[in-house]
Amino acid sequence: MGSSENLQMKIVNGDAGYVLQDVPHLTDYIPDLPTYPNPLQVNPAYSVVKQYFVNLDDTVAEKVVVHKTSPRGIHFRRAGPRQKVYFESEEVHACIVTCGGLCPGLNTVIREIVCGLYHMYGVTRILGIDGGYRGFYARNTITLTPKVVDDIHKRGGTILGTSRGGHDTSKIVDSIQDRGINQVYIIGGDGTQKGAAVIYEEIRRRGLKVAVAGIPKTIDNDIPVIDRSFGFDTAVEEAQRAINAAHVEAGSIENGIGVVKLMGRYSGFIAQYATLASRDVDCCLIPESPFYLEGKNGLFEYIEKRLKENGHMVIVMAEGAGQDLLSESLQSMNLEDASGNKLLQDVGLWISQRIKDHFGRQRKMVINLKYIDPTYMIRAIPGNASDNVYCTLLAQSAVHGAMAGYTGFTVGPVNGRHAYIPFTRVNEKQNKVVITDRMWARLLASTNQPSFLHPKHVTEVNEEEVPQTQLLDG
Amino acid sequence: MGSSENLQMKIVNGDAGYVLQDVPHLTDYIPDLPTYPNPLQVNPAYSVVKQYFVNLDDTVAEKVVVHKTSPRGIHFRRAGPRQKVYFESEEVHACIVTCGGLCPGLNTVIREIVCGLYHMYGVTRILGIDGGYRGFYARNTITLTPKVVDDIHKRGGTILGTSRGGHDTSKIVDSIQDRGINQVYIIGGDGTQKGAAVIYEEIRRRGLKVAVAGIPKTIDNDIPVIDRSFGFDTAVEEAQRAINAAHVEAGSIENGIGVVKLMGRYSGFIAQYATLASRDVDCCLIPESPFYLEGKNGLFEYIEKRLKENGHMVIVMAEGAGQDLLSESLQSMNLEDASGNKLLQDVGLWISQRIKDHFGRQRKMVINLKYIDPTYMIRAIPGNASDNVYCTLLAQSAVHGAMAGYTGFTVGPVNGRHAYIPFTRVNEKQNKVVITDRMWARLLASTNQPSFLHPKHVTEVNEEEVPQTQLLDG
Amino acid sequence: MGSSENLQMKIVNGDAGYVLQDVPHLTDYIPDLPTYPNPLQVNPAYSVVKQYFVNLDDTVAEKVVVHKTSPRGIHFRRAGPRQKVYFESEEVHACIVTCGGLCPGLNTVIREIVCGLYHMYGVTRILGIDGGYRGFYARNTITLTPKVVDDIHKRGGTILGTSRGGHDTSKIVDSIQDRGINQVYIIGGDGTQKGAAVIYEEIRRRGLKVAVAGIPKTIDNDIPVIDRSFGFDTAVEEAQRAINAAHVEAGSIENGIGVVKLMGRYSGFIAQYATLASRDVDCCLIPESPFYLEGKNGLFEYIEKRLKENGHMVIVMAEGAGQDLLSESLQSMNLEDASGNKLLQDVGLWISQRIKDHFGRQRKMVINLKYIDPTYMIRAIPGNASDNVYCTLLAQSAVHGAMAGYTGFTVGPVNGRHAYIPFTRVNEKQNKVVITDRMWARLLASTNQPSFLHPKHVTEVNEEEVPQTQLLDG
Amino acid sequence: MGSSENLQMKIVNGDAGYVLQDVPHLTDYIPDLPTYPNPLQVNPAYSVVKQYFVNLDDTVAEKVVVHKTSPRGIHFRRAGPRQKVYFESEEVHACIVTCGGLCPGLNTVIREIVCGLYHMYGVTRILGIDGGYRGFYARNTITLTPKVVDDIHKRGGTILGTSRGGHDTSKIVDSIQDRGINQVYIIGGDGTQKGAAVIYEEIRRRGLKVAVAGIPKTIDNDIPVIDRSFGFDTAVEEAQRAINAAHVEAGSIENGIGVVKLMGRYSGFIAQYATLASRDVDCCLIPESPFYLEGKNGLFEYIEKRLKENGHMVIVMAEGAGQDLLSESLQSMNLEDASGNKLLQDVGLWISQRIKDHFGRQRKMVINLKYIDPTYMIRAIPGNASDNVYCTLLAQSAVHGAMAGYTGFTVGPVNGRHAYIPFTRVNEKQNKVVITDRMWARLLASTNQPSFLHPKHVTEVNEEEVPQTQLLDG
Repeated sequence: MGSSENLQMKIVNGDAGYVLQDVPHLTDYIPDLPTYPNPLQVNPAYSVVKQYFVNLDDTVAEKVVVHKTSPRGIHFRRAGPRQKVYFESEEVHACIVTCGGLCPGLNTVIREIVCGLYHMYGVTRILGIDGGYRGFYARNTITLTPKVVDDIHKRGGTILGTSRGGHDTSKIVDSIQDRGINQVYIIGGDGTQKGAAVIYEEIRRRGLKVAVAGIPKTIDNDIPVIDRSFGFDTAVEEAQRAINAAHVEAGSIENGIGVVKLMGRYSGFIAQYATLASRDVDCCLIPESPFYLEGKNGLFEYIEKRLKENGHMVIVMAEGAGQDLLSESLQSMNLEDASGNKLLQDVGLWISQRIKDHFGRQRKMVINLKYIDPTYMIRAIPGNASDNVYCTLLAQSAVHGAMAGYTGFTVGPVNGRHAYIPFTRVNEKQNKVVITDRMWARLLASTNQPSFLHPKHVTEVNEEEVPQTQLLDG
Repeated sequence: MGSSENLQMKIVNGDAGYVLQDVPHLTDYIPDLPTYPNPLQVNPAYSVVKQYFVNLDDTVAEKVVVHKTSPRGIHFRRAGPRQKVYFESEEVHACIVTCGGLCPGLNTVIREIVCGLYHMYGVTRILGIDGGYRGFYARNTITLTPKVVDDIHKRGGTILGTSRGGHDTSKIVDSIQDRGINQVYIIGGDGTQKGAAVIYEEIRRRGLKVAVAGIPKTIDNDIPVIDRSFGFDTAVEEAQRAINAAHVEAGSIENGIGVVKLMGRYSGFIAQYATLASRDVDCCLIPESPFYLEGKNGLFEYIEKRLKENGHMVIVMAEGAGQDLLSESLQSMNLEDASGNKLLQDVGLWISQRIKDHFGRQRKMVINLKYIDPTYMIRAIPGNASDNVYCTLLAQSAVHGAMAGYTGFTVGPVNGRHAYIPFTRVNEKQNKVVITDRMWARLLASTNQPSFLHPKHVTEVNEEEVPQTQLLDG
Repeated sequence: MGSSENLQMKIVNGDAGYVLQDVPHLTDYIPDLPTYPNPLQVNPAYSVVKQYFVNLDDTVAEKVVVHKTSPRGIHFRRAGPRQKVYFESEEVHACIVTCGGLCPGLNTVIREIVCGLYHMYGVTRILGIDGGYRGFYARNTITLTPKVVDDIHKRGGTILGTSRGGHDTSKIVDSIQDRGINQVYIIGGDGTQKGAAVIYEEIRRRGLKVAVAGIPKTIDNDIPVIDRSFGFDTAVEEAQRAINAAHVEAGSIENGIGVVKLMGRYSGFIAQYATLASRDVDCCLIPESPFYLEGKNGLFEYIEKRLKENGHMVIVMAEGAGQDLLSESLQSMNLEDASGNKLLQDVGLWISQRIKDHFGRQRKMVINLKYIDPTYMIRAIPGNASDNVYCTLLAQSAVHGAMAGYTGFTVGPVNGRHAYIPFTRVNEKQNKVVITDRMWARLLASTNQPSFLHPKHVTEVNEEEVPQTQLLDG
Repeated sequence: MGSSENLQMKIVNGDAGYVLQDVPHLTDYIPDLPTYPNPLQVNPAYSVVKQYFVNLDDTVAEKVVVHKTSPRGIHFRRAGPRQKVYFESEEVHACIVTCGGLCPGLNTVIREIVCGLYHMYGVTRILGIDGGYRGFYARNTITLTPKVVDDIHKRGGTILGTSRGGHDTSKIVDSIQDRGINQVYIIGGDGTQKGAAVIYEEIRRRGLKVAVAGIPKTIDNDIPVIDRSFGFDTAVEEAQRAINAAHVEAGSIENGIGVVKLMGRYSGFIAQYATLASRDVDCCLIPESPFYLEGKNGLFEYIEKRLKENGHMVIVMAEGAGQDLLSESLQSMNLEDASGNKLLQDVGLWISQRIKDHFGRQRKMVINLKYIDPTYMIRAIPGNASDNVYCTLLAQSAVHGAMAGYTGFTVGPVNGRHAYIPFTRVNEKQNKVVITDRMWARLLASTNQPSFLHPKHVTEVNEEEVPQTQLLDG
């Protein structure tokens, strides 16, 4: 473990193979910080509940499927309120920033950080950073109060605005220091969380009493360790509309093919779960499962087979599926026109065109293809009930953690229990669909599509590569 | 009036400028057809209702806005059941065919023709033609009963399947004759209705006792004379989702632009009504209103202005808007690659690219454009309650008309009352948004977009060109 | 015509039986009022449109189904902007009040009156009266601007609040006079419109330059003359959910009966159209169609028959159906407990109990009844797209009318064209389902329910009683 | 552990406090049963996946929150396919029965048992028992094939029909034996699962080779051990509609109170989660949290306080809340009329009446209360995407278990991993909201309602009573 990771994670070992991967704490680099009783102790809603505070020793097991004799494995610190906090209410000056693409539930997380700080801890100074990371130094801020955020969970998008990139660590920490901010809540995807880790390290280097809490946001569910990311459930639900439409269009015409592109640049969870939920899909293509178009057991052959059997078919594909084929194809085309080229980089448009070209050339089968891209219609809706409850817990866990002096941490559910997870664990790699896992086999069984796997692929799968997905049963 | 029109329309004149544009009747070319009492007279649901049958003299006025002294104008024969019918129940052998693109409510129309024939007139022999016009001679038929169609109104699409083109009049009439069909219900858009007119003429030429009834289907609402086409209401409702999403996406990012393409190749009603219903749209582009991109009062200038004022904007465009610009543009590109070329023929993709290119070149304003094409997601949903009731009335009107011996007619509401309309009237031209009309002015007032009209355009508008739209208040 | 009606309606006769029922104008009692050019003439959205202004002679025919020789009948003044207005923009001080129960689209009407006055006529002083009529003298007002109302059309309810009753004409007109209000927009049902008529008369008596415009609101569609009331379409759509649920519940259990109560105290339009749209209903009970429970051809007999045939059934009833039976029943019970008594006045609960009691006593048939009352879930949703467009036209028509100096009028579509209608015409009686009309016969045919009509009822129907419903085809 | 439990659960102990609570197996009472290779080994979808089969030693930990030194605790057998099965495909004759009230997802479970048996194991003989337990001996059966169940997951209810009670163990097992059924899938709530346990014991007593698998169904989520029950997520989502409507109604009128009754006879999870997801609720009443109406800190006082502060409020209550108060109240009324009495047993109607009476008597505050009961509208909808995926896993787990020879077991997710759970564990008590737990404290914090707890209640809470809820973070 290198020096970077030393700052980001503390390892504690116990009996029977027990390991705790703990998150940093302000006292790790600022000794003698005073503590205060948690104001929740006198909060009417909480005061009657004796067992409300999390036991300091509570940890959450990463491994749930075990053998009688297996080692206990990795654990994380349980999220939740502590008896003692490291900030006084009047002292806190918090800020919230949202980065990256839209995701259902963003506004709920913002709302619940604000309401959590305000109602649970009496914090009144909360700033919204406008327009993502670059908003720290480039744009205005928004004063956040419970009244301002009261209804925002019913709206899609983010009231704070967002952007991609724009990450100048030094200027961001300067801004934090200048404004006197001491709690930073950063909502964003893997790039954003990597940025948060660096911001935390810079703050630590400067010795500032500033807690940095990351709330992982990825509609694609590609963040490791945690059970699922917020917005994912809503996205899978909303994707059903597009799949239904594709099914109706395809079924109303001879040799109808409905193609639906869903989110998922590097991981195909949305496509996979939307396919499993719908039961109307004949083929699901994801980045993790390579496929090929031509030849025996290729996609074209399968399409022809399904159309002959059934008269129509539905294909769902993640936006990151078939990127290797796409690159090859674009190179061979040697397009002069930039516009056409860019459009073809949309894998859904590209594959639709390839299918049309293939069957158009063959002439033996007239097909009718309809392409649907519901991406922005999915991203922009508000969170559903399930995601709203989840976002509430995420936000409150983050607030409890920062108040308790933890920093440089991410929050999220591990096997159903919220925990504080070191940045390094969520940033080390992306969560991906494991195509040798049962969940993917289930999908293959439901679509009857070929696996597109050569036997050699299979044997390459490392026995040690444990499935990462924690969604329901893996 | 030429010979073709003589077959299609009978003119009756009255006092005070009253004109009846009547539809053909089987007795026009088959004399001495026997009549029978309408079975509804002994139907328990109808028998108690004395005034149920339509008075033979009932006609529906096309003109509702009148002056004290204006002539009474054109009228149509009122739809509905007659005391006498020209078919016995056992004698009827009906068929139904659906042609062209999907439209919400198609299955409801099919269902209600079947249930209307069966429950009201005791007709039991009803065939569904599979896959549009060409299904008459190329494919299998489906036996239709109330049980088969019981739940289909809750599903999108058409259970009969559909196709475009495939219209060989002679073979179709041969097939009708061979199968012994004597009532033909044809559901489809303007091309289909033109086909129906020719089929009717061929049947008449052959002297067959076969009633031909057209049910106009166009999600675009571009059929003249009738108040609105079925599915239009559902389409406008469903389009709100896409506009809302575009609004959220645009509003969550700096200089966000949401572009939504809606149906409407030749007329912009869906875009217009969706814009009026939403109130979140900053610019609505339709085929009837020419516009230009560059220069003073052009689209780019307006976009820049709105972004500076408001930080984001939403553009709704009908698929047929700006086709002149698009053709020019494609010619000038001289694309070698067919695929890219085809994609660019999607005006939504094309204009999105043009906007990106324009602001990319300028570099003074970084924009973020999101393009949404909900077309197939809108077309494929089932009809809403309002369209379902409407489709029921359409279907029943068609059935009553055919049973009463009318033929070569279209059904539809004229000023809220269902009428039989000569094919020639619905086929003579397309219903279009009248951009010098109040409804379009209302839209301009709500979006604040420029009219993109040169003064010369305005003066060219002929005083006589009366607005055709009958939707609510024109 | 009595003196009250003389104030409320002006009759103009023409040739061929033409009658214009005109609305009052401020100049009827204030001579020599100055006029001003309509600011729309210089509004960029409207200025290019030559034919935008309504011709002063335009009238809208009430009768659309006519005979070659029939008299031309009653007409109304067409709604829309005039070349000349009777108020200067700076002079206008408008107020808006909403009264009675909730109805989808209320907020849209409020929004569009505000935006119409502001954007079309440059009016900036607009007051919202809080909490219905009594808000004129009892509560605070709300300042309304386009910004305040920007998003309200996406929310159900009314941002102004509402109440029932509270109508003290004299105090209301005092308040109008004290505040210097000169345009009063009153949104409400028949009681409210009657109140508006009296307020107008009192204002006229005092000789004030105050225009009073009524916007009819009734989710039940029970206002005569106009095609339909706003919110009705949304209500029928939303009612489908409840009917679907009743259908599923009933179909999943032996002898399942689903009972759905819908709005409609005096007229059964919602129940009727919801039934026609759904096609899952076996029996529809409305106030206009008397029925009985026991004995031959009674409801119980029909229920037993349907359950034996089909195993389950769905009953939809308007809240005002069977009120005569209910009163009898409550009297005979002689209930001592007030609470139980009040609950039983809910006709849905009452009839559910009666059905359970009947089959419980018989013991030969175990039934499973599920009762659903979706009333408040329907009333509280925002208007759908169709109602939103409609509300926009209503609001703009009212604004154009008031600016043009008309007063004491109601707005609404007559055969699809918006018109100004004298209060006396919308207040003279309630619009009701005509059960000897074809629309009701259609329903009977679709449900197969008995008509519950004794032959004597039928003959009593007066030949002259023309069906009032203008919804689609009557 | 008594003899009954010996039949239902096998205990295996390991090191460090590891306990496995194992389910019965056919070989426990039928020695020397032959085994067969799992047909999945040659299934194209599964065959390429090497690690598809569950390791025989895999167990799932019940406890996820642990301390470094705590014992490992209880574990369950992991669900999933085994290398060897105890039935040949042709030998299997399965049946499925659904019992109790409706729940979203029922049809999905049925569908996936059928498709799982058919597609994974080649089983073709599958019977649906019509109308619940009593259907075994009283009614017809339905032959189930993948074609029959193809679309049923999109419909609410259960295609098999359901009923309550009707459990005659001996006749049921006779029927199973007579029909030659050897796999019994029983979907139902706690009463049904208790019945399943007895059926399993009787089958074991008779020594039959019949596997009994229970699939727990309770919309209320009141089944212990498992993470959540299917349909719960859908129910919470759908409940938002009713709460939104109550919020709009209450907010549109002076002193408006919206009361929503939700499912939950013995446990308030739906009310709790719907409240947490909505954020518009001011008071949530559940069976687990006693409350009182009158006096200091009572409900009436809180209502008065909220109305004074806010002008309106929303109350959500589970149907089982306040049953003690209701019984008292009904006794004191001494109602003579049975009908009124029965209606008042609806706690929502009762409390609405009590609130009206209270404020009516006081006369100092005129309130406007609207009561909404969406129960049947929630129960009758189809499962959402999340529940559909979940139901698929449940069904497949049950099928794998039965094929592998396990019997007398329930399936369900434990900390996100599907497991086989002894009947005795899910039947021993009901899962309830723990009102001294953090989740309930969260709710109190969000509604600001009083806890209605006397201090004595709190101290009574046993330290050992570990929260049972596994939904997200407890």
